[in-house]
Amino acid sequence: MWGRFRSKLGQRRLQILIAYPYQYRYCLHPHIFTTHSTMNTTATIKTFGGELLKLSHDSKVNGCKMDLNVFVPPNAPAKVPVLFFLSGLTCTGNNCAEKGFLHPFAAKHGIAIVYPDTSPRGHNIPGEDDSWDFGSGAGFYLNATKEPYKGKYNMYQYISEELPALLWQQFPQFDKDNVGITGHSMGGHGALTLFLKNPGMYKSVSAFSPISNPKNCPWGDKAFSGYLNDKSEWDDYDASELIKKYKGPTPGILIDCGTADNFYTQGQLLPENLVAASKGTEFDGKVDLRLQDGYDHSYYFISTFAEDHVNHAAKYLTASKL
Amino acid sequence: MWGRFRSKLGQRRLQILIAYPYQYRYCLHPHIFTTHSTMNTTATIKTFGGELLKLSHDSKVNGCKMDLNVFVPPNAPAKVPVLFFLSGLTCTGNNCAEKGFLHPFAAKHGIAIVYPDTSPRGHNIPGEDDSWDFGSGAGFYLNATKEPYKGKYNMYQYISEELPALLWQQFPQFDKDNVGITGHSMGGHGALTLFLKNPGMYKSVSAFSPISNPKNCPWGDKAFSGYLNDKSEWDDYDASELIKKYKGPTPGILIDCGTADNFYTQGQLLPENLVAASKGTEFDGKVDLRLQDGYDHSYYFISTFAEDHVNHAAKYLTASKL
Repeated sequence: MWGRFRSKLGQRRLQILIAYPYQYRYCLHPHIFTTHSTMNTTATIKTFGGELLKLSHDSKVNGCKMDLNVFVPPNAPAKVPVLFFLSGLTCTGNNCAEKGFLHPFAAKHGIAIVYPDTSPRGHNIPGEDDSWDFGSGAGFYLNATKEPYKGKYNMYQYISEELPALLWQQFPQFDKDNVGITGHSMGGHGALTLFLKNPGMYKSVSAFSPISNPKNCPWGDKAFSGYLNDKSEWDDYDASELIKKYKGPTPGILIDCGTADNFYTQGQLLPENLVAASKGTEFDGKVDLRLQDGYDHSYYFISTFAEDHVNHAAKYLTASKL
Repeated sequence: MWGRFRSKLGQRRLQILIAYPYQYRYCLHPHIFTTHSTMNTTATIKTFGGELLKLSHDSKVNGCKMDLNVFVPPNAPAKVPVLFFLSGLTCTGNNCAEKGFLHPFAAKHGIAIVYPDTSPRGHNIPGEDDSWDFGSGAGFYLNATKEPYKGKYNMYQYISEELPALLWQQFPQFDKDNVGITGHSMGGHGALTLFLKNPGMYKSVSAFSPISNPKNCPWGDKAFSGYLNDKSEWDDYDASELIKKYKGPTPGILIDCGTADNFYTQGQLLPENLVAASKGTEFDGKVDLRLQDGYDHSYYFISTFAEDHVNHAAKYLTASKL
């Protein structure tokens, strides 16, 4: 076994192993791929008593292969609540799985966590990979209506319909009637808009430094202009507009944002606009915006408040004593 | 401000920001560099109520610039205990700071954590960057006696003498008489050997999947052959030999190793050899080797047991009630 590691390729593979053991297994042992009903499991990594599964599948709505991570808690109940974590610009499903520190608390509460990717990939659309805030890694959790992204970038339908259907097949123990959603930055926008557009689908919702009023910030302007055909479509993906029209269950909305977050200070996030928009609505007084002194936009911030967000979800998804 | 972000460079910088806010500050704001008495602070990131500092300094013993991270806990006592975390092959001081999740527990106990780099860098020694397990990122916490590494790779002296001296100047609140050490893999070897070679210098010691008997494994054979002039020097950097000759304080040695760790199953780690070597020594019965069922070699394993190792250190470094 050792001899092979002396080769340059072996050396590279072991570098990968130390950082990403699942990739190592993929590189050296393609035969360990196990085919389930709907997804391929490329690695199973034990952590906090549970298992982090590296999964991939073909997406019909996005027309490409999609990767994701799923944390399956230990000693889970017969029906396992599920919390979606939607990641931000430039991320994949790996970043928060590695750096977010949600797993010890998800393990404690017996909640599964799903980490989808942040966009379709590999369509080779001209310019698709040129921007850090548009195209690959920047799907903005919407269905594109503008060419050349129309028909290829459908992250809204992917997260709200296709992926859950695949997950319920892959994990029959998951409780499809007990699902929560959270996310970071662009993923916080995704969590808030998916919750508000689908009353009752998600039993809990929270967000870390979410883009809360995208129609009024540079990130949203660039994304909506590039993905959506008509400005009349913008409100349908803006949490600060959707909350005004929402009718349905009203769990508390927990939002954390760091005061040293340069995107917050630049006016990209605008969480106060969501609070203002909630006045006089069913969520009046139910949006708990916590401005965290001195914290930035990074995973060092997310991990610090991960326990609070998992506990928030558990309050609605489980019978856990908090 | 926004216009600059539209440039390719700006885009790349923001990609970096989201992953590594400190690098972003470096890229966009070199003027934020602050010079202290002995080190440059390139970023200060709030996490778990404390601060993660990104530091760099010139190293005399290694003849190059060295980077490190230091976590300074919140509400720290007047004299702050310090825990060194030595990282493994291919890592820098960043990996465990981002993925190890020691900070919430260090914050709880008021312990500072120091994350040094794993080797000198940039000497441009022929072959220095060719192997993942030798040269850059693989300093093995020894002083090289063999050319061309002699006089350039002195990680033992760096960790045990030069870096602490610089830290005590940079952080006068740190308690130089209350220091512990831990590490992962090659860094576990470093933690065990530095502890055993310097009786009384470290008040606590533990390790995650340490290389415990390097003279008898392929990694150690390659490193010792490459860095050391004579085989007679090998025992002086092998924990399973050093423990036989140790005379001094004998705090418990906590070692965790995953049974699904492919390096363990390949015989690279050999923690049982350290336990066997401790028989009849002052550490007889004091080496607590915990084989953790199903865990691998990754940070998913380290983060799972981080709390136990910080608590173990706190037992010797603080008056914390555990």
